[in-house]
Amino acid sequence: MAGASSPDMAIAVCEAGGLGSLACAMLDPANVRAALGVIRQRTGNPVNLNFFTYEPPREDPKRDAAWRARLKAYYLELGLDAHASVPAANRVPFDDAMCEVVEELRPEVVSFHFGLPPDALLARIKDSGSLVVSSATTVAEARWLEACGCDAIIAQGYEAGGHRGMFLTDDLSSQIGTMALVPQVVDAVKVPVIAAGGIGDGRGVAAALSLGAAAVQIGTAYLFTPEAAITDLHRAALKDAANRTTSLTNLFTGRPARSLVNRMMREVGPISDLAPAFPTAGRAVTPLRAAAEANGSSDFSLLNAGQAAVLGRVLTSGELTRRLADDARQTLLALSGGGV
Amino acid sequence: MAGASSPDMAIAVCEAGGLGSLACAMLDPANVRAALGVIRQRTGNPVNLNFFTYEPPREDPKRDAAWRARLKAYYLELGLDAHASVPAANRVPFDDAMCEVVEELRPEVVSFHFGLPPDALLARIKDSGSLVVSSATTVAEARWLEACGCDAIIAQGYEAGGHRGMFLTDDLSSQIGTMALVPQVVDAVKVPVIAAGGIGDGRGVAAALSLGAAAVQIGTAYLFTPEAAITDLHRAALKDAANRTTSLTNLFTGRPARSLVNRMMREVGPISDLAPAFPTAGRAVTPLRAAAEANGSSDFSLLNAGQAAVLGRVLTSGELTRRLADDARQTLLALSGGGV
Repeated sequence: MAGASSPDMAIAVCEAGGLGSLACAMLDPANVRAALGVIRQRTGNPVNLNFFTYEPPREDPKRDAAWRARLKAYYLELGLDAHASVPAANRVPFDDAMCEVVEELRPEVVSFHFGLPPDALLARIKDSGSLVVSSATTVAEARWLEACGCDAIIAQGYEAGGHRGMFLTDDLSSQIGTMALVPQVVDAVKVPVIAAGGIGDGRGVAAALSLGAAAVQIGTAYLFTPEAAITDLHRAALKDAANRTTSLTNLFTGRPARSLVNRMMREVGPISDLAPAFPTAGRAVTPLRAAAEANGSSDFSLLNAGQAAVLGRVLTSGELTRRLADDARQTLLALSGGGV
Repeated sequence: MAGASSPDMAIAVCEAGGLGSLACAMLDPANVRAALGVIRQRTGNPVNLNFFTYEPPREDPKRDAAWRARLKAYYLELGLDAHASVPAANRVPFDDAMCEVVEELRPEVVSFHFGLPPDALLARIKDSGSLVVSSATTVAEARWLEACGCDAIIAQGYEAGGHRGMFLTDDLSSQIGTMALVPQVVDAVKVPVIAAGGIGDGRGVAAALSLGAAAVQIGTAYLFTPEAAITDLHRAALKDAANRTTSLTNLFTGRPARSLVNRMMREVGPISDLAPAFPTAGRAVTPLRAAAEANGSSDFSLLNAGQAAVLGRVLTSGELTRRLADDARQTLLALSGGGV
């Protein structure tokens, strides 16, 4: 949800009884402080801040050059200077400065993607009183996170939109569907498990609880709400999900993320060995995306979407949150009443 | 389940309240007649026969030669003559002779994989009184099957073991997880939907029903039963599922199937453009498999398994069937009683 959540979304979810979350991977510490300040003013309920954690890769000019060479024809087509300097990546890992913000603002829950931050930072968060959560895409990752002291574990199934949280493996064939992943993680760890991936409505919530999850994490469904801070192009693509497919792609950042398939993914192939390490692959794509989007095209945009995007409905974040819970409750009541 | 089900398994499932199924893709009409005869003698409950349906591919000696060249080093390693004639593929599509058996024996349910047989055969089955079911891996396939008159549709999620039923697309990125697929198919068709893929125990059954499925189809969990007609090597690999991964592979037949990863999949890559059309890719692999298995190795065997294989427990087919239903009922009761 980096770049797609908003304080308004988090507030609405919190007020409707969910755990509202602010995705901070594309925010700097001042942004996070300001956003959480707004949230705290408008809800007294617990809130979640989410961060990416990773080692910034070494500069690799040769690989960058090969990647830019692969994209050169697109630069020419869009009238861009293929030799112009590229912008810095706008995703930042959780670091000392961000940890200070967490220690100061004490969000009730801090969640991570791509593993956990270095031990010293993790200890500071836990000492400040926040619960720590991270995503597992395999049973091995879940066990690792539990051993590191996570208070709950998100089991992120293959269906999920956006970046795969995988951090102990880069083998995409290890990535398993939510239906298979959740019960395996529930059996493997003692902490609560939060199901994510392919959960698009109350039926999915009921299914996740049936699998043993204590809660669900839902992303794509919230991209349809007016509170989502996404482009009109992304919104239009999501509404057309029934006519599109999604795929895992590393083209836009260097790490696999599930996106609606667009021209760049079709032409380059959704996974390319040429894409530089996360997040630097994005540097050479960003000018293409900006130019294309200015022309009303999402040919070069990461269009985050899970495999249940088709189930999305336009509701406010508050209405969606209440409906997810109500529909799940009705689903379970109807099934237990009628017998199996 | 081709080659893995057995009359004993089908009988046990039928007697325990399930719809026992006999996989017929590797049986000839005489085998099917004999097997169904045994089943009918020992249970009066409805039974399901499952068939593969596809156009046998044209012979393509050039492609066959390229595939054999790719495998030549393995022939040498195993002391096999790389120029020896290869056996015929032992999978057969549903045809006129098999249709006569169906018309004569009238199984209550006839199910297909890879679409539906030609109209004339389909009409004969329906005229004989059997219900017709087939697998959809996308919403488009589900709509197509309903339009062709299917009485129920199996929504086969990405997690499922064995062959993908995909028939309107060969794009693996179109294949979505059970959690996302089932509600989309339920919304798209009026006929009952049977969920398959990643359902390994009662929690999965409860989850599938929550998603709107009318029933579930379970394969891998039954491979752990004593009634499964699988090799000791396959059984041992399944019991070690916690230490292995599965992947979709076309190496063994030419069509993607989910198998536990073995040496051939690692070394050739699980998906190869060189593999000849289904089912002829298997001709050049069969001698390798036979020689390796004689040496106690499953390096060249298709080891069908879904992503929930880890959940498998050794029970009889009857016990497993009863436990799946009982556990699903308990799961739903506990969730509706405790509130969401």
